[in-house]
Parts: sequence; structure tokens; C-alpha cells
Amino acid sequence: MKNKHGKFQYIDLADKIQGQIESGTFKLTDKLPSLRTLCRQTGYSMTTVFQAYIELEKRGMVEPRQRSGYFIKARLNPMPASPVMTRHDIRPRKVTLDALIHELTRDMGNPDVLKLGAVAVAPEYLPFKQLHKHLKSIPPRKIPEVVAGYSPPQGNALLRDRISSLMFPFVPSVSNEDIVITNGCTEALSLCLKAVCSQGDTVITESPIDPWLRQTLRDSRIFAIETPTDPGSGIDLDAVEKILKKETVSACIVNPNFQNPLGFVMPDAHKERLAEMLGKKKIPVIENDIYGELYFRDPRPGPLKKWDTGGNVMYCSSFSKTLAPGLRVGWVLPGRFREKLIRMKLNRSLISPTLNQAVVAAYLKAGGFPRHLRQLRKIFSLQHTYCSAAVLRHFPDSIRLTTPKGGLSVWIELPRSVNGSEVYYRARKKGISILPGFLCSGLEKYNHYIRLGYGGLWDNRSEQAIGRIGSIIKDFL
Amino acid sequence: MKNKHGKFQYIDLADKIQGQIESGTFKLTDKLPSLRTLCRQTGYSMTTVFQAYIELEKRGMVEPRQRSGYFIKARLNPMPASPVMTRHDIRPRKVTLDALIHELTRDMGNPDVLKLGAVAVAPEYLPFKQLHKHLKSIPPRKIPEVVAGYSPPQGNALLRDRISSLMFPFVPSVSNEDIVITNGCTEALSLCLKAVCSQGDTVITESPIDPWLRQTLRDSRIFAIETPTDPGSGIDLDAVEKILKKETVSACIVNPNFQNPLGFVMPDAHKERLAEMLGKKKIPVIENDIYGELYFRDPRPGPLKKWDTGGNVMYCSSFSKTLAPGLRVGWVLPGRFREKLIRMKLNRSLISPTLNQAVVAAYLKAGGFPRHLRQLRKIFSLQHTYCSAAVLRHFPDSIRLTTPKGGLSVWIELPRSVNGSEVYYRARKKGISILPGFLCSGLEKYNHYIRLGYGGLWDNRSEQAIGRIGSIIKDFL
Repeated sequence: MKNKHGKFQYIDLADKIQGQIESGTFKLTDKLPSLRTLCRQTGYSMTTVFQAYIELEKRGMVEPRQRSGYFIKARLNPMPASPVMTRHDIRPRKVTLDALIHELTRDMGNPDVLKLGAVAVAPEYLPFKQLHKHLKSIPPRKIPEVVAGYSPPQGNALLRDRISSLMFPFVPSVSNEDIVITNGCTEALSLCLKAVCSQGDTVITESPIDPWLRQTLRDSRIFAIETPTDPGSGIDLDAVEKILKKETVSACIVNPNFQNPLGFVMPDAHKERLAEMLGKKKIPVIENDIYGELYFRDPRPGPLKKWDTGGNVMYCSSFSKTLAPGLRVGWVLPGRFREKLIRMKLNRSLISPTLNQAVVAAYLKAGGFPRHLRQLRKIFSLQHTYCSAAVLRHFPDSIRLTTPKGGLSVWIELPRSVNGSEVYYRARKKGISILPGFLCSGLEKYNHYIRLGYGGLWDNRSEQAIGRIGSIIKDFL
Repeated sequence: MKNKHGKFQYIDLADKIQGQIESGTFKLTDKLPSLRTLCRQTGYSMTTVFQAYIELEKRGMVEPRQRSGYFIKARLNPMPASPVMTRHDIRPRKVTLDALIHELTRDMGNPDVLKLGAVAVAPEYLPFKQLHKHLKSIPPRKIPEVVAGYSPPQGNALLRDRISSLMFPFVPSVSNEDIVITNGCTEALSLCLKAVCSQGDTVITESPIDPWLRQTLRDSRIFAIETPTDPGSGIDLDAVEKILKKETVSACIVNPNFQNPLGFVMPDAHKERLAEMLGKKKIPVIENDIYGELYFRDPRPGPLKKWDTGGNVMYCSSFSKTLAPGLRVGWVLPGRFREKLIRMKLNRSLISPTLNQAVVAAYLKAGGFPRHLRQLRKIFSLQHTYCSAAVLRHFPDSIRLTTPKGGLSVWIELPRSVNGSEVYYRARKKGISILPGFLCSGLEKYNHYIRLGYGGLWDNRSEQAIGRIGSIIKDFL
């Protein structure tokens, strides 16, 4: 039978399947759908489908195997193993935010790029063996519940118990009911923003800020008042006070412990003053404490939430920097915005995956987390030293460098004539990625800054890469 | 040493820990933090912490175990096993949307309520044993990648390959790159909405609609034009045409296959006309196809996306109704809105959990999915018959009932004098939950309708529950 274009139906079907094979939808040695299945799926007759497979066999695309159906024989146009970016040139260009974000996004999960700008932790440092053990040891009777069931919208109660124990030293009044489990700290922060800000609103932030925050505020059409921020002690409280007198502000978003990218810890007195100042005016504070456990020296600094009296601070954190980013388990203490936040969570993602919550709860219950954190802190403290030493060795003498007290990043001021985005493009050509300071602010104030992260596996390759970045910077001088 | 209120520090600390034990943060037989840990966490001296533990031992709250530290001895106020809702009375009341949503939300994951209004699938019908097998058989060398790594923002490439194979019969041109993995269909739909609509915009929807959609539109301050919808063939296309002439519309949101709650399938000619009509005007269509595989009779109806020519249809689905709701693996084919959607995904949740994607990809690769779906279809087709028969047996003769062609719900028109929300409240007192039609529209048009779902385990208890609902309805007449 022919179709409306006068083509035999089986040729038409064979062409479609060939298109699929060539575009890589079916992979080499994949089994094709059975005749019966394809028949039912496409509505073509058994004969047509059979003829199409015979046709593909003739074309050398598929091969029948005894009693097993048809398999892909060879792919005509092999796809490259992973995206290769060859379109960079090193001439000056107009660097747009969108183009940069697009490039950085494309590199996420690309193993061929050495990501020296990221604040991610090398899998090698994470307790994946223990997590795997807990994953494997979920008792069969629990399986329906953890893979096939829904949980309460706030999340797994056992996990919330464990998190409230972790937070107890800093927020002794915290209970299980005060916690909402999220898809990582990203969702926690994003829900907080949605709960208290609308399009057109204004928020107070530090400066510089995490690029994720800058992009999210921009996409949500929320205005940020970037407030002067000291690399040693954090946001300028007098400046905040002045802003509050003049402007209508919907929220204040801060990262008081080991801020990304600066690495400072706000002194306790500052935290207390900020919590009080905003609490009095009932302006919600969104606190990102994702780096809180990654201190280089005892004791762990308390979160701003510690000084919150009226439920005004929305505290966000996750296990993505300490346990397993791929599990996407974060949490929020939404304070007085609890009901609203749970509702936003329902609207956006219903619940968090039950399996992931169960695995993290089992890991925490087993009790190895404090010891693992101690190891992690030692590693990052050491790697920070290596990273800073390499920068001082290879970069020009005129640069300036933060001395973080924990966390995963250093912030580097280059000579004014050097554009961080240009350094990024040149380094990227050599397979190295850094973070241009440009992305950490809406003010175009940090064009000659870059962020480096030292949470990855630190080895000779890292040292060499720092050397290459150093040479690129020197080339610009 | 005493604190500023003149209380001994160790008494103060003991009180705080007791508060935690009583509120259930620590569970019976839990180990308490070691002296050293608590010391570091709280900043108290070793002696103070030790005294506090001795004090708690005196109070009978904790007990020391040789070489293992302190354990909780008994909880003073045992918590009830699960929330019990006793605050219903059966007098008429002002039913507000928020109150109803709040109640239904509280019942999610509450095993003591028979949820006859839900469109969820009983875990017993899902292939959790096979999923568990794949979970256990993840090779150790893969573990860093699947629990401790980040993936590309679009999601696991193998899973996207598998999904494109599933979609191939209907969207032959689909490739791996056209797919974005999401946290369930909820996130897929929510991201589509965010990508094409802003606060204050207007969208076209069916009527009635899924309560989730109604709530999300309301919370996002998006106006819905609920369009007349035939329980047999779906949204009225002439009505849509008229609306498009008069109104500025940002999107059209439809559920063409086995619509929730009505159960209809839009005829192919309708799908084609709708896709063409909106494509011409470049008004994006958001298609929910989550029930598409749950047909009672062959063949599977094609999605609206099949008739999309310009990438104008954003197709959303998930494995939550067929495989495992708790894994939260959904996907979207965002068409021409791909870049924007990926960016919204990054803003809201960064990536989807890598572990969950790997497990679903492994399950699909193993090849048992088509057979499982055939079983599932038989079960739901049968349960639909049981459910409808029970309704006809126990409800008054004057009701009307849809005859869905697939999916998980029936929609019931009660006599005009019967309020569905009142039926809900009375049934809930007996531990049965139904969905009042009130929640499926912003027009207060369906106050005398209810939705029942038949995806749960169907047994004598279900039949009895239908009988009880029938009696409640008859009481109102």
C-alpha cells in the first residue's frame, strides 16, 4: 500500500526507523521493537512492518537474530563521544550573560573539562560506598514505600528527625514539623524566594553573589540591591540599615557562613544584629547555609537562624556538598512561612523523591556522618592551601586573593586591565573552566575578578591548570 | 557556672536536651551525641556536658551503656502514631478552597485514610521488585556517578534515549536532545507554565481540570479561561477558536488522553485541528499525557504532539502512574522553548536526581516495561468496571457517571442539592477521602460533582466505602 505521497508504506516506515538509528535514538546492538509491538504502536499492518524490517536488513541497517528479533547492525554516522566545543576564538567579543551561562551549563556533567571555577565536591571524597551499602540493604518490605509510594509533602519523617538532631546545637527549639525536604538547596532557596517575593519586588543581597542567585533573580524579574560586603565580615550592616529606611524591601538573602564566592563568616554580633533588624521590620531573611559544615577550624559557626526569634529567617541547606549531590536532598526551615512554602512545593514538584530521602536517613542513622565531615574538612582545608599557594606561585604579583575560613572557593581580583570573561574563554579552549566574576553581580563591577573552587580532586593536573591560567592572565598584561 | 537567668548551665543544657527528647527529635533507643561532640557543638565545657548527661540520667531520661555512650531511656510523652483528624463536624460550613487543600495535603501519605478520590496507583501494582533488583545491581564503579555526581541539566542521556524510543511511534522525529528530565510530571508542567506565562497572563484550559492545575494557576496569578469540554471528546474547538479571536492568550493547557477527571480521549481530528489552530497563531500548547499509556483498549491514542509541526506543543509525562511515583522521574519535550525550559529547570532545582534516572533507565533497558504496562491496563480496566458498578449499585439513581476510555478516574454528577464538599467532610469522618468537584474549577460550577479514582488496591473495603459514600449522599436527599 502507498501513502499519500505515493511512497510504499513499508519504505516510509523503514525510512523513519533509519532516521532514528542515524540520529542515535537506537544505539548500536539495541534490539528493535518486536513486529507485534511496532504493529500496535504504529497502526501499520504486520506485513508492512515485516517488509520494513526486511528493507532495513537489505540496507545493512539491522540484522535478524534467531528467536530474538531484529537488532541494529551498525550506525551509519557515528556520533562524537561527547560535545567538543571548537567555536571559541580568542579575539575580544561582546560577552553576554546569556552566552556565558549557556556555555557553563553545557559543560555541566562534561568529564572532559577541568572545572576549576565550580564549587562542587569530587565524588572521590564522598561516602558513596556507605550510601551504596544503605541503598542495597533497604529491606524488600520497605521497597513499595520507598520507590512506589508518595510521602507527606514535607518529606520523610525519619529524615526530618535526623536533620533536626543535626540542627539542634544551633536551633534547640527545632522540631521535625519545622522542616521541609527539598530537591537540593537550589529548590529550597527558590521556594523561599517564591514564597516571599513577586515579580517587580526588591531584595537586599550581598555583593558579589552566587551566579545561580543572580540568574534566578534576573529570570524572576526581582530587583537586587547589592549591598557593600566585606570579604572578612560580610554584608555592611549600616548600609542595610540605610536601605531599609529608604526602600521597600521584600526579603534579604544572605550566605553568612563561608559565603560563595568570598568565603567570609559573619561575626556572631553581626548575625544577631541583622536578624534583629530585619525581624523587627518583619522583612524575611533567606539564609543559605550550604557550606556551614565545611569550616577549616573549630567551632562550626552558628547560622543566622540561631538568632531568629519570630520565625523570620528561612534557613536553607542540603547534603549536596557533604554527601551526594546526585541524590538532591536539601531542606528548609521556613519559619513563619511554612504553610505557604509547603504549598509552593506541591505546586512545583509535589514531593521530593522518597527513595533518596530514605537512603540519606539510613546513612545518618548509622552514625558515620560526623566522622566523614571531619575528614572532608581536613581535605578542603589542605586543598585551599594548595590552591592559594598555586595561585600565588603562578599568577602575577599584582593580584589579590581572599582567605576563606571554610567553604569551597577563593575570589581573585586581577589587574584592572584583565577581563575575567576573556580569561575564561582562553582557558576553556585548553579544557579548563573558571568562573568569571562578571556572573556574580548585576553591576558589571567584577569584570576583572574570577572565582576558583578547590572542592574537586586536587592533583598535578590542577596545579598545571592554575599555571596555564596564570600564563593567560600574564599574556593580557 | 550559672547562665544569665541564674540557672546552672548544666541544668539549662539538660532541659534543652529533655525538650528535644520529649518533642520526639530523638527517638527511643537513639544514641545521644558523644560528650566530645556536644562539647564542640554547643561550646559548653566537657564538665558541663557531662553533668547534664548525669542530670538526665537522674531524671530517668537517658542511660549510659558501657563503652557506647548515652542512650535515650524512655520518652515521657509518646507521640500518636499518625495524625488523627477529629475536628470535623457535619454541620454546613463555608467551605474554602484553602481549607480543603490543606486537609487533602495533610492526608497525603497518611495510611489510615482510604483515598478514593486520588488518581494514584497502588504500590502493589507497580514493579518495585524489579526496580529493587536494578537498584541493588548498580555496579560499584557506577556508584560515584549515580549518587555523588552531577549530570547534564537535561538529564541522564541513556534515560533520554529510552524515552525517545518510547515516544518514537508517535513522534518519529524525536531525539534524545529534545527531552528534558524533570522531577515528575508536576515539575514538567510547572516549568512549561513558567517558560511561557507570567503573572497576569491568561491561558485556555479544559473544564473541569485537575485540582493541581487549578491551584497552581491561582497561586501564580494566571487567569484561566475554562472552556466548555465534552466528557466524550474533550475541549470545544469552536469555543477555543472564538476565544482566540477575542482574547490575548499565552498558552493552552490540555490533557487530551484520558483526561483527569473526565476520562475522554480527544479524537485524532480534534487533536490535529487544535495543534494547527494554535500553531498558526504561535500560542504554545502545554500537553499533559501522563495517563496516555493507561488505555483500556488498543491502540494507544497518539498525543497532541504527534500533530505538532513547529515545536509549539510542550509535551509532559512521567513514570509516576506506571512505574514508581516515589522516584519522581518525569520528562518534557519542550519543542521551541527548550533553552528557556532548561534554564528554568536550573533555576528551580538544578538537575533531577541522578540515582533515580539511572534506575529507571536500567529498568527500561531490561525490556519488561511493555509487559508490565499490559498487566496494568488489564487491572485498571477491570477496576474501572468494579468502581462504576459499585457506584451504580450504591448511589442514588439520579446521579450521572462518565465512562472513561482509560486513565484512573470517574467523574460523578450528584443531584443538584448535594454539595460534594459536604460529602467529602462526612466521608472523611469515616476515614474515606473523595475529591469534591469544587476543586476542579475556578467557576464554582462543579459543587455537586465528585471525582473517584480506581487506581488503588480494589477490594471489599473499597466496595464498602462506595456504599458508605452512597448512604451519605442519600442522607442529603
